[in-house]
Formats: sequence, structure tokens, C-alpha cells
Amino acid sequence: MRQEYGVDRREFTGKMAAFLGALGATTSIPSHRSKPTQPARLRVNGERLQRHLSELAEFGRNPYGGVSRLAYSESDRAGRDYVMRLMQRAELDVTIDYGGNIVGRRAGSVSGLPPVMAGSHIDSVPDGGNYDGTVGVLAAIEVAQTLAEAGMVTRHPLEVVVFQNEEGGTVGSRAMIGDLHDRDLDSVARSGKSWRDGIRFLGGVPERLDRPLRQRGDVAAYVELHIEQSGTLEREGIQIGIVEGIVGIGWWDVTVDGFANHAGTTPMNDRRDALLAAARFVEAVNWVAKSEPGRHVATVGRIQAFPGAPNVIPGRVQASLEIRDLDSAKIARLFERVRQEADSIAAATGTTFQFESSYLSKPALMDRAVQSTIERAATELGLTSKYLPSGAGHDAQHMAQIAPAGMIFVPSVGGISHSPKEYTHPADIVNGANVLLQAVIALAG
Amino acid sequence: MRQEYGVDRREFTGKMAAFLGALGATTSIPSHRSKPTQPARLRVNGERLQRHLSELAEFGRNPYGGVSRLAYSESDRAGRDYVMRLMQRAELDVTIDYGGNIVGRRAGSVSGLPPVMAGSHIDSVPDGGNYDGTVGVLAAIEVAQTLAEAGMVTRHPLEVVVFQNEEGGTVGSRAMIGDLHDRDLDSVARSGKSWRDGIRFLGGVPERLDRPLRQRGDVAAYVELHIEQSGTLEREGIQIGIVEGIVGIGWWDVTVDGFANHAGTTPMNDRRDALLAAARFVEAVNWVAKSEPGRHVATVGRIQAFPGAPNVIPGRVQASLEIRDLDSAKIARLFERVRQEADSIAAATGTTFQFESSYLSKPALMDRAVQSTIERAATELGLTSKYLPSGAGHDAQHMAQIAPAGMIFVPSVGGISHSPKEYTHPADIVNGANVLLQAVIALAG
Repeated sequence: MRQEYGVDRREFTGKMAAFLGALGATTSIPSHRSKPTQPARLRVNGERLQRHLSELAEFGRNPYGGVSRLAYSESDRAGRDYVMRLMQRAELDVTIDYGGNIVGRRAGSVSGLPPVMAGSHIDSVPDGGNYDGTVGVLAAIEVAQTLAEAGMVTRHPLEVVVFQNEEGGTVGSRAMIGDLHDRDLDSVARSGKSWRDGIRFLGGVPERLDRPLRQRGDVAAYVELHIEQSGTLEREGIQIGIVEGIVGIGWWDVTVDGFANHAGTTPMNDRRDALLAAARFVEAVNWVAKSEPGRHVATVGRIQAFPGAPNVIPGRVQASLEIRDLDSAKIARLFERVRQEADSIAAATGTTFQFESSYLSKPALMDRAVQSTIERAATELGLTSKYLPSGAGHDAQHMAQIAPAGMIFVPSVGGISHSPKEYTHPADIVNGANVLLQAVIALAG
Repeated sequence: MRQEYGVDRREFTGKMAAFLGALGATTSIPSHRSKPTQPARLRVNGERLQRHLSELAEFGRNPYGGVSRLAYSESDRAGRDYVMRLMQRAELDVTIDYGGNIVGRRAGSVSGLPPVMAGSHIDSVPDGGNYDGTVGVLAAIEVAQTLAEAGMVTRHPLEVVVFQNEEGGTVGSRAMIGDLHDRDLDSVARSGKSWRDGIRFLGGVPERLDRPLRQRGDVAAYVELHIEQSGTLEREGIQIGIVEGIVGIGWWDVTVDGFANHAGTTPMNDRRDALLAAARFVEAVNWVAKSEPGRHVATVGRIQAFPGAPNVIPGRVQASLEIRDLDSAKIARLFERVRQEADSIAAATGTTFQFESSYLSKPALMDRAVQSTIERAATELGLTSKYLPSGAGHDAQHMAQIAPAGMIFVPSVGGISHSPKEYTHPADIVNGANVLLQAVIALAG
């Protein structure tokens, strides 16, 4: 069931918070409940959380495991309906905002305070897994249900959010902060629908996305639990990752020009082989990245040689270059080193290199206070933790623009994600959910 | 005008040679001609040859220079009609054989002797030049006309041959020696026609290609004048190249398997990057080839990374490998070295390499006696010459299977071919045509 379709979220947050806060305080403690537990002793119900994960995995399930729950598909909508039922069971007031995001609200005890938000997404890539995104959504619902069962009312409201179409470009969180422009809405998602039609399909109102749904001050904090999409935590045997930030990304289109010639008649020493130059470039990108300490990465993921026949020396190669780091200046410096290597390669091979910047996103730093809150929660739960960057993009990077944001990572076996093989041990999920619970309690007061 | 469509060439050669030889002897010396010149003093008419080159360049001419005279296109057929008119003016008896090749015959003086053949092709690649193939055809016609004007009758007949569709796979010469099978005829040429339809379009009879049109013993010698498709002669200032043979070619499909992973979240040292391995492979192919003396070449001309996104570490790369040399054993040995390098790269990068042989042609050695004849002709004409391999394939490689074959190369500026920029100086063309003339006289007796 969906309530308050198309509510203007800013009004909702601004004017109605007091009313709803009061409503929440009176309605969220049913009479059959026992005396509230001490907040620090509260724990989620791990078995229930695990059952919800299994149940959600039925929507868009692949015959060979994992899910293909593409944003705006029937299975996406069916999965969202299931999640909304869970939210209602957890006594959350459920709405869909203009951006098509699901928001389940638990009122706070002090009127007028902005909510603490926790959430993630449930859409998947094609042939995706059962943990990326879903763990964060279901754990946030579990947090709400745990609070409800304990009869605990925080000072700030709690909002559980399910962002739509994270995998296709963090569309829902961009809509929430007003970073989705009319021209963006014509983009076509992998399910075949345009973003505009997809948002409508989910119950949103794309015509109303010309203004931000939430602005700075509207959200007290945003916390997202997610599987770690690299193998660091698992390899090091650490239970909780505290995300320092989401890396910035630079993309360049690289064009190498040599001289196409007959591969049978052109002696080895007379060649200006664009692919030989590109091969040296791929190697140089790799060693430049490895030559500096840090957790930056640099990748050549796409390459094509022209004309691309076995019997023609490539006259041109087009390739991609990607560099990621938490520090924009470091991305720029690494690119400069790569470009210098390219100059040397060009001189040695009789070729030329051209670089065209095609995408540049700034790093999104997580809030230091939220990071400390997460660390403290982990420590008090007796869990080992480690600070690390997120190499992947998340809805949190947009929420960080309007609110103090934090992310909690749990180990993913082998660092595998975007694959049916994605797996996180139940114990790690419960750990993460308990850290989320304690962090939310701390942040919401 | 075309005569004797669909003549069974073997019968033609076997039974009718005597008749035609006699005919040629009586008809090829018009009454207005002066007393025959000494054979060694005979020279082609360079101005006429150059004019014919310019005229032929009109068929399929590109607005920006060069020609696109694709086999089986209208411009191919129009060009062939023009060439047949030249042949008739040179007093050749013109036929089109079952394979669609044009054969212009000048009878010899001794009945029953097999012909000496000279020729090449007039079809071009898309955006081709005005010299590749055409020089050999027009020079052979010029040789016939020079003999006719001089009233000189050789002992063996002379046949000028225009092989069809050389650029699409030496189709005409393969048809002539019986190397074109029924299934091959379904191949589609770049003009859009199947080889079968194309052969019919040119006046051939594809149904009759189940048997060789010429066999060992049917041809006394085959000589082909061609531009050198590398820059060796021009760079070294040498006028005539004597081809030792046409290199053998080995093609392999190379597959590199690593592990596709998120380019943002997978640390540099945890990667099994198939493209990094492939880059090292491209470099290894290059240095293995350069590390041995000789005129072999090795090339990676095609490469593709999968999935091929800027933000995904390539899990698989497919590439081509080509090795060419005059010696099959050397091709095998170089391949073995490359494969060993791949093993080391695989071990160092956590990847695997697979090689699948996709094509293997044997080297076609030119006949030593024909080579000596060409060398002597060059020397007697006061021209510098050099023995070299042909890195490119030619119709001569098939003719070498049934007859003593030889090739004469002339310099091509910058070694450029298959391009509108292809250019050979008129003086070099005349030199080549005179060497062809003297070699034909020597071979035809």
C-alpha cells in the first residue's frame, strides 16, 4: 500500500514534521509491549532480517541464482511492494516521493527536528546478486522494527529510504537533492523505460523534479549500510568498514594515432603501430598507479584497434582511461604522470596520443562525526573495524551534498559484486545491522 | 568484346594450341611493319603504358583520388572491358575462362608448346590506388603490343592474364588451378555479390570450376610485375626487386582470460586484468619478432576487451596474431616463442592464454630459374636489382603450384599500397615493363 503519493516532500518535512512526530510518539508504542530495553543493549533480529533477504530475492530471481531486478521493471515494482509491506509491519508511515523513492517514516519525540535517514536501494544490475543495496534497505527496516518492538522513540524522526534506480546512475538520490534535470529524464534505463516513464511507473511525479525534494537542513544525517565491493575486509578479517568517502572518478577517451599499413609488407622497424603504443600505455597506466602508495586505482577497460583486421597494422587505437581516488588533486596528478608516459611512448613509437576528458566526478567525503559514531558503535559491539574509501558510487555520495553522511561496509566474500556469486555471511549482515541500529540511535538521540 | 566464353581452357590449351600458334604467327605481323628489331634491344612504349594507366584509373575513380574498383562491381566490369579492348589492339585473342579471368593469347611459333603467362589483376580494395595490380596487367599488354609491333613471334605462346578478384582472396587464380570449392563460391565479396554470382557477372561459368582450368604442364612459366608494397626498394634506391617467394601466413585467434571486476573497488594488486596481460602480449610479439634476424613479420591487428566498459576491469580479451615468413619452420618457431612469452605473462598476471589457429598458408617459393632470368634481364637493361620476399599475397602464389613462377617488383613511394596515395614513378614502371618484356622473351624463347 502506498500513502500520500506525490506529497511535496519539502512541505512534508517542513510543516508536517511536528504533527507526524507527535503522531509517531503516540502511535508507535502498542500496548502489548514490555518495558523498553536500554538503547545500548538493543539488537536486531538477525533471523528475521535473513528471512527478509531470502524473500526479497524471489523478485526477479534468476534461474541460475541471484536476481535481475532492473530498475522500473515489473520485478522491481513487485520487490518494492514487498518492501513497503515490511515497512508497514515495522510501523513506518510509507510514502513515495516525487522522485519515486520510497520513504518510511518513524516519528521522533521532539517536534520540528529533521529526520535521520537510513537506506539504500533494491534494484540490481542484470545478473546481479542478493546483497548489493538490499542489505542496506532491509537492515534499515529491521532497525525501525527493532525500535518499534522496543518501544523506543528517538528525538529525531527516523526515515527509511529506498532509492530508485541506483544501478542506472543513482537516479533516485539525485532526484532527492535536485540534481536531476529535465534532459536527464530522457535517459533510457536497461529495463527499456526512460527515467521519466520509470519514475511514473514507480509512483513518482517527474514533472515535479525541477526543484530539490530535500535541501540542506532537511536531513539530520544519512547512514547507509552496504556490502564492501572489494575483498579488503574479508581478506583482512575485519568485520566493519567505516567509509571515509566515495572516490572521485575521472574518465578520459584516449586516441592513439600511428599509421595503418600492410602487416605483410611493412618491416618491423618501419612501423608506426598504434596498438604497440597503446599496449605500452596500458602497461604504463598500471605501473604509474602501482608506483604510488594509496588506494587510488587506474584502469583501461575499453580498447579498439582500427581498422582492426589481422593483416593490417593498426593505424589508430581508441581506449578508455579511468582514475579514482578520494582526493581530486591526486587524480589530476596521476593523470599528469600517465600523460607524460604517453608522451615518451609516442616519441618512441612514432605515434601521437590525445586525451579527452569525458567525465569527472568529485570525491564525496563522508562526515567525520558520523564516521566516529559508526566507529564507536562497532567498538561497543565488540567488532573490529577499519577506515576505508568506497571505490564504487553510492546514493550516499549525493546525500552527502545536503547532509552529514556515513556508510557502513560489511565484508563481501571475494569482493564479488554485480554477480549472482555475490555473498555476505549472515553473521556479517547482523553485525552491520547492529552497527546501523546503534549509529541511528546515537544520531537520532 | 569477349570471345569464346566458357571455352574449356584445358582443351583450348591442349588441342587448339597448335592451330592458334600457327594463326598467331601468320596474323600478328601486319604488312606495314618494319623489319624485326633484335630481341635484346626491344623496349616497351613507356608513354603509351602511362596513358593506359591513366585511362584505366577512370573506372571506379574516387573523387579524392585513387579508385574503388571492387571485384564484381560495375566499375570492375567496365575496367575489364577497357582492358580487353587494349588486348585486342595488341593483337591478342581474348577469352574469358570459366573462372572469370581474362586471357589474351598471342600464338607462338612452335606448335604444342605451353604458353608463358604474364599478368596480374585490376580489381582494387575500397579506397585503393592506381598501381597495385594494374601495373602488372597493363605492362603485360604492353609487352604483347611491343612484340606485335616488332613482328616478333616467340616459340611458346604468350598469354596475358587478368585474374579476377585478387583483393578479395586471389579468387581467379585459385579458380584457375582448381583450388576453389563449391562452398567457397558462397563467400560474399565486398561489392555485395557472392563469388558465384560475381564470376557469372564477369562472364565465367562457376558450375565448371569443379576441375582445374590449368594443371601442371599447361603453363611454361608465369611472370607477374607488381609494385613493391613495402618501402625497401625505394629506401635503398634499387630499381628492380626479384621476388624469392611469397611468404607463408599463420593466423591465430588469441583469447586472454582474467577476471572481470569493479574497476573502482578492486585494488591494483588484486586484479587479474586480461587487458594488462594482452598489452604485455602485444609488446612480446613485437620484441620476439625484432629479436631474430630476417624479414619475418609478426602483428597484432585486432583487439577487443570484454565487457569493454571504462569502469570494469577486462575479464577477457580477444586478439589476432599473424606471423609471416618465407619459411614455414620459422613461422612455427616464432609462434612457439610467442606462446612461451604468453605463458610467462599468464603466470605473472593470473590470466590464461588460448591460441586457436585460424588460417595457415604455406610459403610459395618462386622458381629459381625464373628468378635468374629476371635478374639477367635487369642486369642487361643496366638496372640495379635485389632479391627479396613478398610479404603480401599475390596470384603468383597459386600459379607457383602448377608452373615455374616469378615476380618482378618496382618501387612504390613510401611503400604505400591499398590507398589513394599509392604511387610509382613512371620511370620505375617502364623499367619494370622492360624487365618483364625481356624475361618473357627469354622464357618464351
